[in-house]
Amino acid sequence: MGRQLKYDQARLAVLNVIAEDRLRPGDKLAPERQLISRMNCSMITLRKALESLEREGMLERSVGRGTFLKRCVTNDSRSGKILFLNVNRPGDLSYPPPRAREYMQFYFNERGMEFQYLQVSSFSNEIVKEAEDVLGILLYGWLSDDFMKSIASLKIPMIIVGNSRHFSGIPQVELDIKACAELVTEDLIRGGARRIVLFNSAPDYYPSYDLESGFRKAMKRHGLNENAESVIFMTDGNRGKELDRLIPAYMEYDAMIFELGIYYSFLAASRINHWNLKQKIGISPLSIDFIDQWNCDLVRASPDTIFGRFRQSIFEIASNMLLEYILSSREMKTIRLKPEIDHGLEEE
Amino acid sequence: MGRQLKYDQARLAVLNVIAEDRLRPGDKLAPERQLISRMNCSMITLRKALESLEREGMLERSVGRGTFLKRCVTNDSRSGKILFLNVNRPGDLSYPPPRAREYMQFYFNERGMEFQYLQVSSFSNEIVKEAEDVLGILLYGWLSDDFMKSIASLKIPMIIVGNSRHFSGIPQVELDIKACAELVTEDLIRGGARRIVLFNSAPDYYPSYDLESGFRKAMKRHGLNENAESVIFMTDGNRGKELDRLIPAYMEYDAMIFELGIYYSFLAASRINHWNLKQKIGISPLSIDFIDQWNCDLVRASPDTIFGRFRQSIFEIASNMLLEYILSSREMKTIRLKPEIDHGLEEE
Repeated sequence: MGRQLKYDQARLAVLNVIAEDRLRPGDKLAPERQLISRMNCSMITLRKALESLEREGMLERSVGRGTFLKRCVTNDSRSGKILFLNVNRPGDLSYPPPRAREYMQFYFNERGMEFQYLQVSSFSNEIVKEAEDVLGILLYGWLSDDFMKSIASLKIPMIIVGNSRHFSGIPQVELDIKACAELVTEDLIRGGARRIVLFNSAPDYYPSYDLESGFRKAMKRHGLNENAESVIFMTDGNRGKELDRLIPAYMEYDAMIFELGIYYSFLAASRINHWNLKQKIGISPLSIDFIDQWNCDLVRASPDTIFGRFRQSIFEIASNMLLEYILSSREMKTIRLKPEIDHGLEEE
Repeated sequence: MGRQLKYDQARLAVLNVIAEDRLRPGDKLAPERQLISRMNCSMITLRKALESLEREGMLERSVGRGTFLKRCVTNDSRSGKILFLNVNRPGDLSYPPPRAREYMQFYFNERGMEFQYLQVSSFSNEIVKEAEDVLGILLYGWLSDDFMKSIASLKIPMIIVGNSRHFSGIPQVELDIKACAELVTEDLIRGGARRIVLFNSAPDYYPSYDLESGFRKAMKRHGLNENAESVIFMTDGNRGKELDRLIPAYMEYDAMIFELGIYYSFLAASRINHWNLKQKIGISPLSIDFIDQWNCDLVRASPDTIFGRFRQSIFEIASNMLLEYILSSREMKTIRLKPEIDHGLEEE
């Protein structure tokens, strides 16, 4: 590793310690010995980093008394940036939740890095240009082979945020959707359900396959009947009308599992149709990242419903992981978050 | 007006014309005479602006042939910035829709300005610092008197995006919520409804008051009975439970109007309670800015429902207005967008 890279990493690692310890101007930094072990670097490298931050006016070192924070990271003291690429097929826009974007912006800014969000539909010169002074990339959305091949050629630390196909050598933070569907199905079976239907999202939506396979795995394990009719893939057309036609065919079933987006359409269709269904309802998955006011209200008002829920945020974990990747240059491993069962959200 | 300011405005106005005409590198700009009338400036000012853009390498002027676009606005050629302040009470976060934020970022970047989004809970030195090279400010969220007093002292062109109290001298782009509630109520009355209840959001949520007053206005006009029981203000607690208790008291009513957020909780509660309601349902307001995938699915699956709908985006209009404000230094007037009635969203 080049010397300059090592010092740049150490500088960022000191900023990270300051952020982790929530230091305010005037506060004293942890002793050097502790910093060395937390940053996993040599005393020489640490001292170079502290000197450089002292020159920038962020730290004040006083012989015998220690090192003090003089001022927080400001716009001017930021160096290097993180690129968040939201890759979407044309005409099919999806976005990270606003709260997650706030989090990432704050997380990296606080640690002395710019955070740049870019919406793209294909690999382009714009990305190459923006990637010039980039320390790391977070990838989100619809990732094609071609796109990934081009982006990987940039040789920048990168992490895929969210479920997508796996690309060799690129670490990912994703939800274990299969385990989630399995858990919800198991819970319904334990509650006495034998005939269960899964209303799944569109077949080309990446997590649909995992949802189906988790569901079928749990059904098979208990020797329960599952066939082509057990899993419905909804199109992106008028889902209300589709459900009007489909639901009556499943009146004799014991339980229904919905993908969260489909559950919304189901609720609206239910009110019109007065189906008066007696089935148990399961929903998979509910991710902490998408719990906004509306989702929260909706879910809270569903007391007899079983949720497969993820309590950790893929955006938080991916941010932490990308920083560690940048600071340590160590290869990262894909993380698959585990779901749990939740019988209605508890009060906040 | 200072000369420099006039030239800076003219430079931005040329970039605006380039963006409006969707010019690509190699394309020819409109004739100078047309530019002068569109930009409302003198020939001297226009020429100074064109010269400055030629020096920056963006334009190429060729005597007798005209002015050509050489390259688009890039990161490096941006000057000045727009600040979007999302002001929230602590612990009560709300966000502009991601698509709106994209739009604003793109709109201002394309016209040679940075776009900076900042989440704040009070007026602080951070804002003063960020406001140094700011051309204009968009204000969104929970605006208190104290906050507005401080921000107004910065003497920067600013526009309030969305419904809030009015502050003298600060133009606003807002939804006419009162007209929306009135329209939905009128439509239900025309359909034969006599006893109508409004399930409103929390009393301290700014648009609640307008929703109530539009509803009562329509009821009064038709000599229909409306009293304390006709408008329910929901708290932010467990709305499902609240509705369990409230809905049975309105079984004999002809129609129910819901604020969109409350409608979500109502749908979830309906499924559990099997109320089998026969009432007509009205929803007010549905704003184009908040029509995301889920809202769209939900609404599309509600064919017998009456929506008070806004087809224009407050974020788009506010961006256009702020730019005009910056370019012309003319005082802007508050714009209140008008609603229309929609019996279910048409297919896209």
